[in-house]
Amino acid sequence: MLVSRRRLTAAAALGLGFTRAAQAQADPLPSWRDGPRRRALLDFVAAVTTPGGPDFVPPTERIATFDNDGTLWVEQPAYTQLIFTRDRLRALAPANPGWAQDPVLRAALAGDLSGVLAAGSEGTLRLMGLTLAGLSPETARRLAAEWLATARDARWGRPYTALVYQPMLEVLALLRAHGFATFIVSGGGVEFVRAFSESAYGIPPHQVVGSSFALQPGEAEGRITLAMEPRADFVDDGPGKPVGIARFIGRRPIAAFGNSDGDWQMLRYTTEGPGRRLGMIIHHDDAAREYAYDRQSPVGRLARALDDAPARGWLVTSMRQDWARIFPGD
Amino acid sequence: MLVSRRRLTAAAALGLGFTRAAQAQADPLPSWRDGPRRRALLDFVAAVTTPGGPDFVPPTERIATFDNDGTLWVEQPAYTQLIFTRDRLRALAPANPGWAQDPVLRAALAGDLSGVLAAGSEGTLRLMGLTLAGLSPETARRLAAEWLATARDARWGRPYTALVYQPMLEVLALLRAHGFATFIVSGGGVEFVRAFSESAYGIPPHQVVGSSFALQPGEAEGRITLAMEPRADFVDDGPGKPVGIARFIGRRPIAAFGNSDGDWQMLRYTTEGPGRRLGMIIHHDDAAREYAYDRQSPVGRLARALDDAPARGWLVTSMRQDWARIFPGD
Repeated sequence: MLVSRRRLTAAAALGLGFTRAAQAQADPLPSWRDGPRRRALLDFVAAVTTPGGPDFVPPTERIATFDNDGTLWVEQPAYTQLIFTRDRLRALAPANPGWAQDPVLRAALAGDLSGVLAAGSEGTLRLMGLTLAGLSPETARRLAAEWLATARDARWGRPYTALVYQPMLEVLALLRAHGFATFIVSGGGVEFVRAFSESAYGIPPHQVVGSSFALQPGEAEGRITLAMEPRADFVDDGPGKPVGIARFIGRRPIAAFGNSDGDWQMLRYTTEGPGRRLGMIIHHDDAAREYAYDRQSPVGRLARALDDAPARGWLVTSMRQDWARIFPGD
Repeated sequence: MLVSRRRLTAAAALGLGFTRAAQAQADPLPSWRDGPRRRALLDFVAAVTTPGGPDFVPPTERIATFDNDGTLWVEQPAYTQLIFTRDRLRALAPANPGWAQDPVLRAALAGDLSGVLAAGSEGTLRLMGLTLAGLSPETARRLAAEWLATARDARWGRPYTALVYQPMLEVLALLRAHGFATFIVSGGGVEFVRAFSESAYGIPPHQVVGSSFALQPGEAEGRITLAMEPRADFVDDGPGKPVGIARFIGRRPIAAFGNSDGDWQMLRYTTEGPGRRLGMIIHHDDAAREYAYDRQSPVGRLARALDDAPARGWLVTSMRQDWARIFPGD
């Protein structure tokens, strides 16, 4: 009885997998509802990959960039990296009694992340720097991966890496199947994003551009060491995103995806280039299935980019209308 | 008569192509003479790509890094980028009469590149910065590509991009055929290397790590601009190479190729990692077919890395003994 139930479950799982796989072959965007955004995505891919067509782009120039927080995974009620930083600060606090004197640190230790966010990205980066100082990039990434393996989101009780957007995974796969190289261009710390980008999105570490802390080379026990300094040496947000793209990717993207004003410059830099371009904003307007926020949100504020979208031809994707599913498990 | 001769030539060319292609299929390293270096390369690739073997490395971790000057192409009698910089300085000198007062600038304008080299990498970077200041990265790359299309090496009378090492092209192709991602990690300015890395080596811009100048974001005529500053913000040489690798690639390579003491740290960082590793030094000991230099050379000085090679297990490739051909046309 137990065995046959197990067999049934296994068969059902296989059946589901097979159905989804067959569906995906027929339709590369099964989680996107039919409508102008879905059609624009498919039209764009067809246009730039049709040999001899007026909009054809050679494979080596097919670069697509994606913001991470709020574009590929959930960023509310606080950036996941900030929650990780809070937990690291708490672990390190007993050895650093002076921290209690610092108002931003005190807010973080008390779990008042809106108090940290009020200090701006400089405040957040300063706290991140305190938790990373002296670590090698490899250790920083390992600590992030270990935390991600056990931490759970408060609303859904799932690992944060389960809260990636299924429709965006399909966009990544669609673009890669058509010869695109896909990059993350995130305001987050690069080692945190690299800790899960390959398993969650299929994006290897060298295709992740992010904010970074200065690296100090040294030597210990006869080996070369690299130690992170608490000082951010590059902030990959807002005006920094085109800088990061030029520095790390070395080519202007032909497609960019974002969700906040921090992506305004990346969307502009992408769509101001010559030839066919695609700029897309993910608009969080689904409080029931995810979150609804834009102009007033301290996390992922979206105002200027939303106002600019019609004139610049950027597509505004409505999570509520355009996405049939939100997360891979749904 | 003319027609049949043309046909014969075409047939001969096709025949040659076919022969070389067939040979390459049978032998991935046709320009390498049999010997310990050639065998070590093939053994390494077999070891890290044999599933279930003790040295197996998953494809995503198969990272190989290559120095450029002197490792992938000729660097004597002066780095090609320095010759380009001299030509740019000469073009800009009439508008900058004050340059004549600066001894390093005066040496460069007079064509005395050894006088520039005597000022060290700081001196070279300062001159490069003067020629690049205010340009966008895209313009800097275009100017380099235009120069490379017409400039000729004095000794062979060939374009510099024809003076790449055929045996190293075969190593790049061998590694890529076995799932490796291949990166350039060069002390040279990144935009100069990106100007030819894709056509010469099949390495796209985002897989080139190099020295860089600060980028200033701005706006002109309603578009986002990026302008290079004369100040180097990252020097990807010596101790900077492991920093550049950690920052841009985000993974420790399992194979590294260099030819000078500027590669010592990269070779160490690569081969100090756990598991099977490969470090290789290209030793320029062939004055007849290329150049012979090491300990005393102001360009590509090789002393410490050569002394360290036996104890660290680095392979020292002799151009004279190990390479049956040097350049693609040979």
